[in-house]
Amino acid sequence: MPTFFQVIEFLGTFAFAISGIRLASAKQFDWFGAYVVGLATAIGGGTLRDLLLGVTPFWMTNSVYLICSAFALILVIFLGKWIIRMDVTFFIFDTIGLALFTVVGVGKTISLGYPFWVAIIMGCLTGAAGGIIRDILINEIPLIFRKEIYAMACVIGGVIYWLCYHIGVPPIFTQLISGLGVFAVRLIAVKFRITLPILKGKEHNS
Amino acid sequence: MPTFFQVIEFLGTFAFAISGIRLASAKQFDWFGAYVVGLATAIGGGTLRDLLLGVTPFWMTNSVYLICSAFALILVIFLGKWIIRMDVTFFIFDTIGLALFTVVGVGKTISLGYPFWVAIIMGCLTGAAGGIIRDILINEIPLIFRKEIYAMACVIGGVIYWLCYHIGVPPIFTQLISGLGVFAVRLIAVKFRITLPILKGKEHNS
Amino acid sequence: MPTFFQVIEFLGTFAFAISGIRLASAKQFDWFGAYVVGLATAIGGGTLRDLLLGVTPFWMTNSVYLICSAFALILVIFLGKWIIRMDVTFFIFDTIGLALFTVVGVGKTISLGYPFWVAIIMGCLTGAAGGIIRDILINEIPLIFRKEIYAMACVIGGVIYWLCYHIGVPPIFTQLISGLGVFAVRLIAVKFRITLPILKGKEHNS
Repeated sequence: MPTFFQVIEFLGTFAFAISGIRLASAKQFDWFGAYVVGLATAIGGGTLRDLLLGVTPFWMTNSVYLICSAFALILVIFLGKWIIRMDVTFFIFDTIGLALFTVVGVGKTISLGYPFWVAIIMGCLTGAAGGIIRDILINEIPLIFRKEIYAMACVIGGVIYWLCYHIGVPPIFTQLISGLGVFAVRLIAVKFRITLPILKGKEHNS
Repeated sequence: MPTFFQVIEFLGTFAFAISGIRLASAKQFDWFGAYVVGLATAIGGGTLRDLLLGVTPFWMTNSVYLICSAFALILVIFLGKWIIRMDVTFFIFDTIGLALFTVVGVGKTISLGYPFWVAIIMGCLTGAAGGIIRDILINEIPLIFRKEIYAMACVIGGVIYWLCYHIGVPPIFTQLISGLGVFAVRLIAVKFRITLPILKGKEHNS
Repeated sequence: MPTFFQVIEFLGTFAFAISGIRLASAKQFDWFGAYVVGLATAIGGGTLRDLLLGVTPFWMTNSVYLICSAFALILVIFLGKWIIRMDVTFFIFDTIGLALFTVVGVGKTISLGYPFWVAIIMGCLTGAAGGIIRDILINEIPLIFRKEIYAMACVIGGVIYWLCYHIGVPPIFTQLISGLGVFAVRLIAVKFRITLPILKGKEHNS
């Protein structure tokens, strides 16, 4: 029986893969290309984290992430039009994925003995780097650099994790509160259209 | 004296480097840029594989790959027009490279004790990721996501490797049959214009 | 008290971060996106080097690089127009950064026992790969593949390092001469508009 945590992780991976596959389909990728982009979106952030931490990438010890991305592809192939209309559902899944991935990234980094500021960066990478890799693969400017609060939600979640950890909140609640923090920040930001200021400049190389 | 295997590896590296350098030349890169793109095409896949496997990248212990890519650059500089007409020759070299790189990637991963599905992924990465890195460097959508059977040939070669290994075929024949499988699949796919279905969708972010 | 070397390193990191943030601002990135691009420009090359060498990325043990990039962002936010006019100043900083990063990369690789040709490549990566990552993130063709002598200055600096090392020059002078070599080559190349030949070709895939 999968635990509650594993079900959540499955949903998050699934939502991330769907987001990659949908964008790939807009570029007329074939099934293989769409699968690669979906998979890279789902596991790219955690893979970068694990490479930086010097541990074996998480998906190399458990095939569930690959299977989960394959399910996402099959769903888009068979139910494409229906899926494309489910924007709100996938926004929720995606935000759950973001929250969960952030918490996993922060927790894993701390358990390896790194300082907290490294853990917060790793939380951000786990949550947001997959989307950056996705956008590089489809040759677009990464969305999260220009649109909405996204990675900032991970930063805030990481800081909440650190505060909880510091004042001695039990691990399970620390994770829950931090994850809810990410979820809430992203939800509020999108709902009230809160964005970061834009840097304006002229094209200029140094 | 180089072995038969080493000669094949040299040809594969060479063909991959040429493919990178030709595309770089279409973008008006300078010699250095073209060399970097050629080199990244030739060694990028194996480097990513070795980083994921946690071993020293293969080209850091043997300078032949860098020299081979330099030869490719010199050839394109001096014989550019002549080379550009040799499409069929380079298609053959490139496909040999793909087959060999796949077999090397699968074999290396198994020898490190990873399960077979990891080995198949590593075979694909070794064969196909160099081309993806090349296309990112020249700022194009990766060709293999939209055109022809390419990475799928690696997957099929990996599965053949696994089957042979499973029923106890001796290593040398396992490698040969698997490599020939990759070669044959790609050849047949291009010859009969067999492609994977395209995913069609609208531009849409989640 | 920071040493002379640390001050130089701070200036180099700062100049690299500024270069990333300026280009990000030309693409209308938000503050977070600009910070990420600035940081990636400043630490991307060294991170790639450390991943390839199999050691912990340098910025994970010292937060000064992140803080330094944050200063660069604040400066651009508050003094953007003024900064954009300081082309010559930043060209000097950037070239100092290039020289220093190259020397650090070569030195670190040698101290880990790798052969010299690996060290020269790592010197180039440390100095130039950050700019390539920056250009990938802003979805442009990497500048250094088409413009000016840049990475070639790193190669020449690396060769000078090797020569000095070989004939027994004390480490501190080896580093100084090699760094000055990088600086001089880049300065002379820009001053006299010396460039590498361009490879010309037609769009063509193999």
